[in-house]
Amino acid sequence: MIRAKLFRVLAILLCTFSAISWAVGQNNAPTKPRARDLGVPFDGTPGPLNAITDVSGVTVGHTTLISGEGKLQVGKGPVRTGVTAVLPRGKDSMNNPVFAGWWSLNGNGEMTGTTWVEESGFLEGPVMITNTHSVGVVRDAVIQWRVAHGQPDPTGYWWSLPVVAETFDGWLNDINGFHVKAEHALNAIDTAAPGAVQEGNVGGGTGMICNGFKGGIGTASRKIETKEGSYTVGVLVQCNYGTKDNLRIAGIPVGREVATEAPYASTSLVNDDHGSIIVIVATDAPLVAHQLKRLARRVSLGLGRNGSISGNGSGDIFIAFSTANSGAAATDHVVELKMLPNDKLGPVFAATVQATEEAIINAMVAAETMTGIENHKVIALPHEKLRQVLKKYNRLAQ
Amino acid sequence: MIRAKLFRVLAILLCTFSAISWAVGQNNAPTKPRARDLGVPFDGTPGPLNAITDVSGVTVGHTTLISGEGKLQVGKGPVRTGVTAVLPRGKDSMNNPVFAGWWSLNGNGEMTGTTWVEESGFLEGPVMITNTHSVGVVRDAVIQWRVAHGQPDPTGYWWSLPVVAETFDGWLNDINGFHVKAEHALNAIDTAAPGAVQEGNVGGGTGMICNGFKGGIGTASRKIETKEGSYTVGVLVQCNYGTKDNLRIAGIPVGREVATEAPYASTSLVNDDHGSIIVIVATDAPLVAHQLKRLARRVSLGLGRNGSISGNGSGDIFIAFSTANSGAAATDHVVELKMLPNDKLGPVFAATVQATEEAIINAMVAAETMTGIENHKVIALPHEKLRQVLKKYNRLAQ
Amino acid sequence: MIRAKLFRVLAILLCTFSAISWAVGQNNAPTKPRARDLGVPFDGTPGPLNAITDVSGVTVGHTTLISGEGKLQVGKGPVRTGVTAVLPRGKDSMNNPVFAGWWSLNGNGEMTGTTWVEESGFLEGPVMITNTHSVGVVRDAVIQWRVAHGQPDPTGYWWSLPVVAETFDGWLNDINGFHVKAEHALNAIDTAAPGAVQEGNVGGGTGMICNGFKGGIGTASRKIETKEGSYTVGVLVQCNYGTKDNLRIAGIPVGREVATEAPYASTSLVNDDHGSIIVIVATDAPLVAHQLKRLARRVSLGLGRNGSISGNGSGDIFIAFSTANSGAAATDHVVELKMLPNDKLGPVFAATVQATEEAIINAMVAAETMTGIENHKVIALPHEKLRQVLKKYNRLAQ
Amino acid sequence: MIRAKLFRVLAILLCTFSAISWAVGQNNAPTKPRARDLGVPFDGTPGPLNAITDVSGVTVGHTTLISGEGKLQVGKGPVRTGVTAVLPRGKDSMNNPVFAGWWSLNGNGEMTGTTWVEESGFLEGPVMITNTHSVGVVRDAVIQWRVAHGQPDPTGYWWSLPVVAETFDGWLNDINGFHVKAEHALNAIDTAAPGAVQEGNVGGGTGMICNGFKGGIGTASRKIETKEGSYTVGVLVQCNYGTKDNLRIAGIPVGREVATEAPYASTSLVNDDHGSIIVIVATDAPLVAHQLKRLARRVSLGLGRNGSISGNGSGDIFIAFSTANSGAAATDHVVELKMLPNDKLGPVFAATVQATEEAIINAMVAAETMTGIENHKVIALPHEKLRQVLKKYNRLAQ
Repeated sequence: MIRAKLFRVLAILLCTFSAISWAVGQNNAPTKPRARDLGVPFDGTPGPLNAITDVSGVTVGHTTLISGEGKLQVGKGPVRTGVTAVLPRGKDSMNNPVFAGWWSLNGNGEMTGTTWVEESGFLEGPVMITNTHSVGVVRDAVIQWRVAHGQPDPTGYWWSLPVVAETFDGWLNDINGFHVKAEHALNAIDTAAPGAVQEGNVGGGTGMICNGFKGGIGTASRKIETKEGSYTVGVLVQCNYGTKDNLRIAGIPVGREVATEAPYASTSLVNDDHGSIIVIVATDAPLVAHQLKRLARRVSLGLGRNGSISGNGSGDIFIAFSTANSGAAATDHVVELKMLPNDKLGPVFAATVQATEEAIINAMVAAETMTGIENHKVIALPHEKLRQVLKKYNRLAQ
Repeated sequence: MIRAKLFRVLAILLCTFSAISWAVGQNNAPTKPRARDLGVPFDGTPGPLNAITDVSGVTVGHTTLISGEGKLQVGKGPVRTGVTAVLPRGKDSMNNPVFAGWWSLNGNGEMTGTTWVEESGFLEGPVMITNTHSVGVVRDAVIQWRVAHGQPDPTGYWWSLPVVAETFDGWLNDINGFHVKAEHALNAIDTAAPGAVQEGNVGGGTGMICNGFKGGIGTASRKIETKEGSYTVGVLVQCNYGTKDNLRIAGIPVGREVATEAPYASTSLVNDDHGSIIVIVATDAPLVAHQLKRLARRVSLGLGRNGSISGNGSGDIFIAFSTANSGAAATDHVVELKMLPNDKLGPVFAATVQATEEAIINAMVAAETMTGIENHKVIALPHEKLRQVLKKYNRLAQ
Repeated sequence: MIRAKLFRVLAILLCTFSAISWAVGQNNAPTKPRARDLGVPFDGTPGPLNAITDVSGVTVGHTTLISGEGKLQVGKGPVRTGVTAVLPRGKDSMNNPVFAGWWSLNGNGEMTGTTWVEESGFLEGPVMITNTHSVGVVRDAVIQWRVAHGQPDPTGYWWSLPVVAETFDGWLNDINGFHVKAEHALNAIDTAAPGAVQEGNVGGGTGMICNGFKGGIGTASRKIETKEGSYTVGVLVQCNYGTKDNLRIAGIPVGREVATEAPYASTSLVNDDHGSIIVIVATDAPLVAHQLKRLARRVSLGLGRNGSISGNGSGDIFIAFSTANSGAAATDHVVELKMLPNDKLGPVFAATVQATEEAIINAMVAAETMTGIENHKVIALPHEKLRQVLKKYNRLAQ
Repeated sequence: MIRAKLFRVLAILLCTFSAISWAVGQNNAPTKPRARDLGVPFDGTPGPLNAITDVSGVTVGHTTLISGEGKLQVGKGPVRTGVTAVLPRGKDSMNNPVFAGWWSLNGNGEMTGTTWVEESGFLEGPVMITNTHSVGVVRDAVIQWRVAHGQPDPTGYWWSLPVVAETFDGWLNDINGFHVKAEHALNAIDTAAPGAVQEGNVGGGTGMICNGFKGGIGTASRKIETKEGSYTVGVLVQCNYGTKDNLRIAGIPVGREVATEAPYASTSLVNDDHGSIIVIVATDAPLVAHQLKRLARRVSLGLGRNGSISGNGSGDIFIAFSTANSGAAATDHVVELKMLPNDKLGPVFAATVQATEEAIINAMVAAETMTGIENHKVIALPHEKLRQVLKKYNRLAQ
C-alpha cells in the first residue's frame, strides 16, 4: 500500500512538469444536443441517461489531453488524445470480476487481455481505451492500480491481464510523441463515475475521426421488459472508423448528402476504411460468458445499420459484460449463478444492436470540429444539415 | 463407375414410386421483376446477371419438391421443400477444390464440413442447402456423387466431408416426413448450370419465410474495378430469418409500414427471430483461406443493413470461396498462388456487404405467396406496397 | 407418436430383409484384459468401471455390423462397421440438454451439430459416432428419434441439430456400400445402457485402425476428490489415428519396439497419419459451457502423451459435457446454476488428460485382429509383447 | 529519424542512472551441456545449432536484468527478469512481414497483437517475451523502434500492433517494481543475432520456474527432408509452467523420481499449475497463414509429451511463422506465393512436436539454481540425477 502511494505521488510530481494541460472532470450532465434531440429516429426505449451508466454500477472516466497548435513537433505536440476507463462495478471491478465475452469483426487493432477473457469467461478490472501507441503504458498502469488498490489473487500475488483497446488518432494527434502517461490512465480510473457520460472529443476519443467527420466517444442504452425481469443494455463506443460515402443514419445515406466545405475527404485516409471502432456492451441481464460473446457479435449488426463495411484497416473489436452474478468469480467454493435462457435473448440482442447504432451517431453528433497537428482539420457532422437530409427522406422524428 | 450408375438407376426407380412430383429445370432466365426492377436502390454495380453465377465457373442447381395440400399427414405431405446446389467450379468442383472460409453469426443451424474448411482452407465439392431434417441424406448423397464422379484422394480412397447447410421449413412443409431423398440432391448437382438463377420458392428455399414474408433463394453480384484487376463478387442466400418488425429495405423500415391482410404475423413464430439464413459468397478475386473467412464475416454487415438482430433461433451461417488459384489444392508439389493484398480488400468487402443486402431483398421479391401444411399461408412481400413505402421515404430509385 | 411407431416398424421390416447380421447386445461386463490388467501404468484413480459410464446417468450403446469376407463387392461387403451412441442423461438426453463444449485439434473430420454447441453452450441429445460415409444417415435418424421420443421445442416443433462424428474405416469395410442404416443408429440409442462398456471392435469403432494396430472404441475414467466435492471424469474414444512409429505407451516408444509379422505397415496408409480420433469427455463436475471447451482442449495433451502428431489426414475432434446442472436448458425462467471456479479446474484437467491417455490404450488392448475387404488384415497390439517392452523399460506396473 | 535518435539518447541517459546492471551480450556459443549432451533421447534430426536460429534469417536477442539480493523492496529489487526478442527476418522484420498463426492452449496470459495476426495472417516485427507486468512498456517500445527504423505503412503512418508475450516471475523477481524499461526492449531487438542462442536464466526467461525446477529460455530445431524440399523447423520457449509431479522427460516420470533437498516444492505455487509457457515456432517451409495456425496447435502435443495438463493458471500461448514468401505482405500488387500442400505437412507437424518437446527440456537443463526476492530459491534440474533416472528406465541415450 505504501509503495502504491509513493507511486502516485511520483506520478503527480511528474505530471506537474508536464507541459500538457489535461482535463479531469467528466460526467457533467451534457447540455449539448444528442442524436435524438436532433430528430434522428431509433428503435427501442433508452434508459434514463441513454448511456452505458444506465447499467447500475458501471462508471466511466475520461482523461482528455489537448494542448498545442500548428506544426507537429514529435514529443511536444500538438496533442489531441486521452484515455477512457469503463469500470463494470466501479471501484470494486478488480475484486469482483464480471462475466464477459469479446469478439473481433476486423482485427486490425489491439484489445489486450482478451485471451484470458475468452479462456476464463471473466473480465477482471476496467476496460480502457486510448490511442494506438499508448496501449502499453495504459496496460501496465492498470496493473499498478491493482497493486495499489486490489486484492492479491489466491496465490498471494497481485497481477492481472488488463483489457486495453485503442484506435488511431495520428491524423490529429502527435501520436509518436507518446503523450499518454501512467497517471492519465490512473486518473481516468480514479475519476470514473456513474451518471451522464461526456461524449465526443473526450478521453480516448479526443482525436478520432468517424465516417468522414469528427468522431470520438458515444453512448446509448436500452431498457427491456421481459417476463423474466426488466433489464438494461448500455453501449459505449470509441469510434474512428468508416468512410463518409458509406455513412447511413437511420438508414438514410447521409454521408453522400452532406457536402462539406473544407473536406477531410481530401486526404487519402478518407478513401479507405482506416480507423477503428471499439465497442463496450454492458448489461445487468444475467448472462454467462458464452452468451456475452453472442452479445459482442451483435455489435456488428449495429455497425451494419450505419453502413460500415469494416475495411481492412479497421480494428472493430467488441467486448460485452454482465454486472449480474456478483461474486461469480469467487475461487474458494462452488458458486451459484443465474442465467437468462438462450431462448430469451432476443430482446437483449435487439437492444445491443439498437444501442450500438445510436451510440455511434451520438458520438458523431457530440463531437466538435477539431484542428490538430499540421493544422489538420476535421469538421463535425453539421447538425442542421443532418436534419435537412432526414427531413428530405421523411425520417425526421421531430 | 458401374456401381454409381446402379445407384442412380435405383434412385430413379424409387423416385417413380414417389408421390411427389419434382421440378428439375432451373436457370431459365427469370422474367419476374427483381428488387432493382421495383425501384429499390442499392450501392455498387452488379454483374450482367446480378447473380452468383456472374463469378465465372459457378453453377447452381435446384430440386424443388411441391406436392399435396391441406391437412398434414406425416410422410405424405403437403410437401414444400427442396435442395439447392452451388458448385464453385461446376463439375470440376470435387477434383479442384477452392480456397474457402466460413463463419457463423449465430450458430443455431447446421453447416456440415466446416471443420475441414477451417482446417484445410479449402472447400471440396459443392455447397448444398436444404431443410433442417434433410441435411444427413443430402450429405451422404454428395459422397455418393463423389464416389461416382470424382477422383480418389492421394491415398486411393473416395471420401469427402461435404458442406451441407439448412434452414427450417416446418411451418409450410411436412418436414418430419423426410421427403428429400438422395436422388433429389444428386439431381440438384447434376442439373447445376451457369446463367440466370431461379429465385424465390425454389430448391432449398421452397418453403422458407423471411422477415415475416415468404422467403427463399435470392442472389446478387457486384463488379469491382481495381488497379490490380477487375473482379466479381456473387452472393446466394437461402433466407428464412428475421421478423417483419425489424425489416429494413434500402434503410427504410418497410416491415412496419406494410400491413398484411392475412398475416403470417399472427403465429407465434413471427414474434421471435426463428428461422435462419445461409449465405454463400463467391469471388474470382485471388483470396486465400484466411481472407475468405474475412469475407464471410462481412455478410453480417449486409444483414445489419436489412435490420437483422440475429435472434437466438436463427442459424446465420456463411461460407465464402474464391475460384481463383485453380489447382491450389494439388497434393504432389509446392503450389504457386496469387493473393490480393489485405490492403486491397476494401472493395471486395464492400461488394460482399452490398450483394448480401440485395440478395436477401431479391429472395423476398421473387418469392410468391405459398400455402402449405394445415393451410398455413405465408404471403409474399407485396411489390406495389413496397414501392409506395419507398416513395413515401423518397427512396424509390425509379 | 403414432407416426414414430410406424417408422420403427418399417425400420424393423427393412432390417429383416437385410443380409447383414448385426449385434445388438453391449455393455456386458468385459472379461477381456484391459491396459491396466496388462501392467500398463497410468496416473490417477479410475472409477469403479474405469469407463465413461462411471459418470452417473451416462449410457452407451453400440450397433456392430460385421458380415462377409474376401473380395470387395460395393454394396454387399465385406462389412466391418457400426454406430456408437453416448447419451449424457440416458433416455432423458433430448429433453434435458447438458452444458457442453467442443474443440478440434485437427479438423479433417466431421462432427455435426457443433456450431450450435458452440453458440448455445448446450448439447441436446446423444453424441453418435460412426464411419465417414454414414454421418448423414445417422444424423437424420437422431431427428427421427427425437420426433418419436422427445418433446417439441418452445415453438411447438420437433427438430434438432444432432451431434454425429466419424472416423474412416474404408481399409477394412465396404464404406462405399453405405451399410449403416437409420435402424442401426436407432438401435444404438435404444440399447444404450449404463454399466461396463464394450471396447475394441464394436459400434462405430468396429473397422478402425490406431497407431498401426487394430483400433476401435476405448474408455476410461478418473475419480477426483476436492474440497468442493468428489467428481468423476469419463472418456470414450473411437480411435483410428496415428502411426506405429509414433506410438508411446506409458511414455515408452512401444510402436518401434513391436515388430509385426504381417504388417499393416506395408500399406501406404501406415506411413501417413491418416485416420482420426473422436473423443467424448463426460463429467459430473458442475462446469458451464466455456469451461467444458477448456476440457475438450485438454484431450490433445492426452494424445500428446501417446505420441500423436495429429497428422493432416486426422480428424481429431473432441466434445466435453457435464451432467451437473440438470434443467439448465429450461426456456421459461431464469435458471439457477452451479459452477466450479476456474481455479479449481486443475484436477478436472488432469483427469481428462489421464483418462484420454488410458482410453486410447484400452481401445488398442481390447481390439482384436480383423480381416476385412480384400482380405486386408490389421493385427491387434500383441499383449505379451507389450508387456515385454514395458518390462525392458522398467515401466511394467505388475 | 532525428526524433528517434533523440529518444535513444534519452533512454541511454536514463539508463545511466539506473541501479540495475544489465547484460547485453548473447548468442555466444553455449558451452553448457544441453539435454542431448546428457543423454536424453529425442525423435528427429536437429539442425546444426539445434536452435530456432537454424531457420535462416531468424535472430534472437536477450536483455537480462539481475541485481540485488535478499529482502524485497518494491522498486529496488532484487531484480531477476528481462526481455527476449525473436526477429523472423532480423532487422528487416518490420518492413517484410511473415505469414503467421497463433493459438492459445490455455489463455491465462497475454500475447498482444494476436488479433491482427489472426485477421491479417501476418506477423509484423518481432515477437517479444518478458514478465507479466512489463508487457506494456515493451509493447510501446516496439512501436518506438518502428518509428525509428521501419517504413511507414501505405497511408504514410508509422504504427504497428506489436506481439509481446509474458510469463510471471514474481516468485523470484520484484515484478511490482516494473524494472523493465523501454531501453531494455530496444536493446534486445538491437542486439538480436543469428547463431547459437543462450538458454536458461536469460532474457525474458531469467526468473522463470518450470515443472518444479528453474526454467527459462530453451530452443531446439529439426531438419526435414521431403520430396518438395529440405526444410527447418525451429522452436524457442520461455517456460514457466507445470508441476514437478507431472514432469515427463523422454516419456519417463522424472519429476517424481528426483527428490530435491531444498525443494521449491514447499511453496504453494508448486502444487498448482501456475506459470505459463510461450512458444515461438519458426520454419522456412512455405506455409501460409492458416497452415501456421495448425503448426501453433501442434505445440500442445509437445507439451503433452512432457506431461503438461495445462493448468488453469497457465498462459500457454503459441505463435508460428514462416520465413518463406518474402514480400508476401506487399500492398501494391497481387503477390505470388508458394504453399506446401496440406498433405505434405506431416513432417512439419512432427518436427514442431519434437522440437517443442526438446526446447522445454533444453530450457530446464540450461537453467541454473537461482535465489531471488526474499531469498526464494529455485534449484536447477540436477543433471546427474536426471541421467540416473533415465538409466533406471533404460532410456539413457549415451
